[in-house]
Amino acid sequence: MSDEAANGWVVIAGLGPGAEGLITPDAQAAIDAATDIVGYIPYVRRIAPRPGLTLHESDNRVELDRAAHALDMAQAGRRVVVVSSGDPGVFAMASAVFEAVEAGPQAWRALEIRVLPGITAMLAASAAAGAPLGHDFCCINLSDNLKPWSLIESRLRLAAQADFAMAFYNPRSKSRPEGFVKTLDILRECCEPERVIIFARAVSTPDQAINVTTLADATPDMADMRTVVLVGSSLTRLIPRDGAPIVYTPRSVAKDAE
Amino acid sequence: MSDEAANGWVVIAGLGPGAEGLITPDAQAAIDAATDIVGYIPYVRRIAPRPGLTLHESDNRVELDRAAHALDMAQAGRRVVVVSSGDPGVFAMASAVFEAVEAGPQAWRALEIRVLPGITAMLAASAAAGAPLGHDFCCINLSDNLKPWSLIESRLRLAAQADFAMAFYNPRSKSRPEGFVKTLDILRECCEPERVIIFARAVSTPDQAINVTTLADATPDMADMRTVVLVGSSLTRLIPRDGAPIVYTPRSVAKDAE
Repeated sequence: MSDEAANGWVVIAGLGPGAEGLITPDAQAAIDAATDIVGYIPYVRRIAPRPGLTLHESDNRVELDRAAHALDMAQAGRRVVVVSSGDPGVFAMASAVFEAVEAGPQAWRALEIRVLPGITAMLAASAAAGAPLGHDFCCINLSDNLKPWSLIESRLRLAAQADFAMAFYNPRSKSRPEGFVKTLDILRECCEPERVIIFARAVSTPDQAINVTTLADATPDMADMRTVVLVGSSLTRLIPRDGAPIVYTPRSVAKDAE
Repeated sequence: MSDEAANGWVVIAGLGPGAEGLITPDAQAAIDAATDIVGYIPYVRRIAPRPGLTLHESDNRVELDRAAHALDMAQAGRRVVVVSSGDPGVFAMASAVFEAVEAGPQAWRALEIRVLPGITAMLAASAAAGAPLGHDFCCINLSDNLKPWSLIESRLRLAAQADFAMAFYNPRSKSRPEGFVKTLDILRECCEPERVIIFARAVSTPDQAINVTTLADATPDMADMRTVVLVGSSLTRLIPRDGAPIVYTPRSVAKDAE
């Protein structure tokens, strides 16, 4: 291995949900030190061009090709940042890069590969609404592109039984309009109609919209691919005030409640 | 309300798990604009003193008093940042502040109160280990100070049944040595002995230690109050290499697996 190759690396960095003020200094430093940025088109477009930096945009659903490209370049001595929205470890590029490493040439395992955490959408959404994830919660990707729908359904029912607050990523897309209809139906079977549900769209961007409603009043069209959905636990509360209410889940569960 | 009082605010900000490079610019900007910092002693000590900034340190377990103090000062026109480690909405100060708001004087509801998200410990730990939370997961506070142990036990069993990866906060303290013993016993009943478990201590600080082991080999003393514990799903994988293995959970579940 040449000295140049020995200096190559891959960093998988999270850019947060959209606002510049939610990109960590560590992620920014990696971008500043990179020779190459790899990622899905809208995320790569968040990176400012500069001399010496090559931007490699790729389409959705080519995550493994993108990962292999990044690893190949690092092997050749490039300093590569794979960018994700939010946190790269939450339904994003970190797992895809490691799938490629496991399936790829042995030499890739000797590369310097680091993951830099970011502000994931559910935590930015929770902050915007108050603190609905302030107690035990779970996080489910509602897309059945990569897993059977029966597993999603089983997880929804068990999460409701556990009385977790829930965060849903990828609730609804044009190619999967029915999944979120079924999700709401399952939740209505398992939870009371007054259960709080929050549709948080484009959090931390100029398009941010936070819609606080109940399971009884929720409709599938309230979600799209830019929306993260938060469902409260049975203890989640609203504090009414002028403007949007504050939504929070208390830290305590009464010890005689169980 | 005087003009001065009208300008008071409370920001509940997350300082991330410890590294300066994981504090968001938004959180830093709030600290820079504050007149008062309120929080648990070790978190307040992370803030650089400066003229015009008063640091209010308080002990653990006085969260509601601390919240009321912050709201009182904002009501009097001060610009107050309540600091939490990690993300303030994950087992931290945001819920405590909103509990105080709900129980407090009506005027507190008119205050400007904002939550700024931070890098929570489980996501920093996941990044340090690879991507063990790369698929559906849940997040449980193992302390039974504020909830019945029976609820923790029920959630552990349902989470295992749902095959969630799991993140545990506050796994073990000197005053609660038995809870984590019981947690491991329950997991051993519900999961195979080879299940991956990660003890991530003091993530992102100079004391960081990542211990990747299996449920069969895990012992209660591997956790303390500075540890976040991650348990893989049944699909979580290790990539062996020189040094620590990479731990990740694939994005896919075979469609014929269910």
